[in-house]
Amino acid sequence: MDVAVAPIAFSGSHIDRADHIRNDPAALDALRTAQARLLRMDGLDPVLTDDSALAWGSLADASADSELVFLGIAQGVDGEHGCFAEVPATTPSGGPHAGPASWNAMVVLESGELAAYGTARALVGWHMRHRFCAVCGSPTALAKGGWQRTCSNAACKSEHFPRVDPVTIMTVECEGKLLLGRQPRFAPGQYSALAGFVEPGETIEEAVKRETFEEAGVRARDVEYVISQPWPFPSSLMIGCHAYADDPAIVMDETEMDDVRWFTREEVTDALAAVARGEQGKAFGAPPKAAVAHALLRWWADRG
Amino acid sequence: MDVAVAPIAFSGSHIDRADHIRNDPAALDALRTAQARLLRMDGLDPVLTDDSALAWGSLADASADSELVFLGIAQGVDGEHGCFAEVPATTPSGGPHAGPASWNAMVVLESGELAAYGTARALVGWHMRHRFCAVCGSPTALAKGGWQRTCSNAACKSEHFPRVDPVTIMTVECEGKLLLGRQPRFAPGQYSALAGFVEPGETIEEAVKRETFEEAGVRARDVEYVISQPWPFPSSLMIGCHAYADDPAIVMDETEMDDVRWFTREEVTDALAAVARGEQGKAFGAPPKAAVAHALLRWWADRG
Repeated sequence: MDVAVAPIAFSGSHIDRADHIRNDPAALDALRTAQARLLRMDGLDPVLTDDSALAWGSLADASADSELVFLGIAQGVDGEHGCFAEVPATTPSGGPHAGPASWNAMVVLESGELAAYGTARALVGWHMRHRFCAVCGSPTALAKGGWQRTCSNAACKSEHFPRVDPVTIMTVECEGKLLLGRQPRFAPGQYSALAGFVEPGETIEEAVKRETFEEAGVRARDVEYVISQPWPFPSSLMIGCHAYADDPAIVMDETEMDDVRWFTREEVTDALAAVARGEQGKAFGAPPKAAVAHALLRWWADRG
Repeated sequence: MDVAVAPIAFSGSHIDRADHIRNDPAALDALRTAQARLLRMDGLDPVLTDDSALAWGSLADASADSELVFLGIAQGVDGEHGCFAEVPATTPSGGPHAGPASWNAMVVLESGELAAYGTARALVGWHMRHRFCAVCGSPTALAKGGWQRTCSNAACKSEHFPRVDPVTIMTVECEGKLLLGRQPRFAPGQYSALAGFVEPGETIEEAVKRETFEEAGVRARDVEYVISQPWPFPSSLMIGCHAYADDPAIVMDETEMDDVRWFTREEVTDALAAVARGEQGKAFGAPPKAAVAHALLRWWADRG
């Protein structure tokens, strides 16, 4: 799927990461001017302006005890601005999942702005969860414009880098039907693609097959990559795949799943159309438009 | 590329991960018998038998102060065995990269055995680097058979999971030639595909384009996924892609790269053939057979 044709939510940021600046303290300092922009956040939640854009302030708005993350350089009508986000000294409450403010942002924000928020959220959240060194337990400090944390213990000095967790998410097809499941935490009637983290020691294709078998007892084959998405809750790389199965018999993992079922192309097409109307389809409720699972279902429905 | 046809190094382990056992302390205990097998390792390096297989011992060989990681269940001629690896209480010396023992294992080990070693190496290395909680700095303890570490601080109790770092590695094609580069640490004459970590807030395709532009100044388009590989030095998921460029002009990143050049299909084909003879090709030295870059070059050469 060409992301240029169908931009997936949280991709397509307009901010140039300008990674060469991260390693150049003088260049980084030169960007910390009155023109620099600080992304306003409410804890890890987005803050929007009245006309549904990201709200930005200046570096003067940052708390004296915050750390600053360099997001990159944005092109404004009045020239280039360094863009930053703030890591507060105290970690706000709230879990790693998307809350109402984030779900709203996925609907109303322009895609490039949503991507800028997603990058900031993933990075700031990572800093909050890595204030100490996993190697030796000493405090860490932000380095390289926020793209590293370094252990303060002179005998350790371990370098830590922002974490991105690859997750496989897959639609599996058998006899013209699609395998979808629902977790207990889903709203009633909602189904989505099966998914799971890639583990050490496996390929993307092996992870797809393992997860499909673990969650549904279905043997997948001929895995093909379809689309990827950065999902900043807290910092996943969703790797969307499609696969096939020869035997539709389901043996569900009852500890993880509430239900796993096969749906027809007609049911999937109807459920996708219903999302646009804010409704559930006749057979099930499809994932929201910003979720990569929605794109996977659309991809399958369209090639029918 | 169908991994069943062309197994990539470090994939295809014969050990069933049996993930349901990880959450079942009684089932895990029931596997800790005299029949259980402990993977022998020299620090993080593989230990091989005289006939070039992985060397296994019994759980009695583990030090009393080691932690044990549950790798899964293997089927032997005499039934099923639980398979474990040992996390020594003291971290051995040696960096994250593959050393001579690992490179040798990539040549002589059967592919399923190499995958078992890779999984163990990635997991054991992760445990060694995560003895403390990144959230609060307290000691962590192994949990869920080694697929988690849990903070010992009752006020924190953070759960930490084995890290897998997605890396894009890409061949870029322009006017029938392939873009390859060499880093200063490479042996003389060696070239490989450009590569870089996927960052928070970007898709696989965006990471490919960013890295290609950063390292070579070349604008890539039409990124397609080709193959993936788990690379346990220390714990990468290599995501192999191919892309195209319209303008072959190179602006090299001189801080990261020693040289970046375009090679013809004839030069690539010759270099791949030379690897099998233990030689360098006429134009350059290609990556070793176990590297995903070798598979990417082969994929491109074969479809010529």
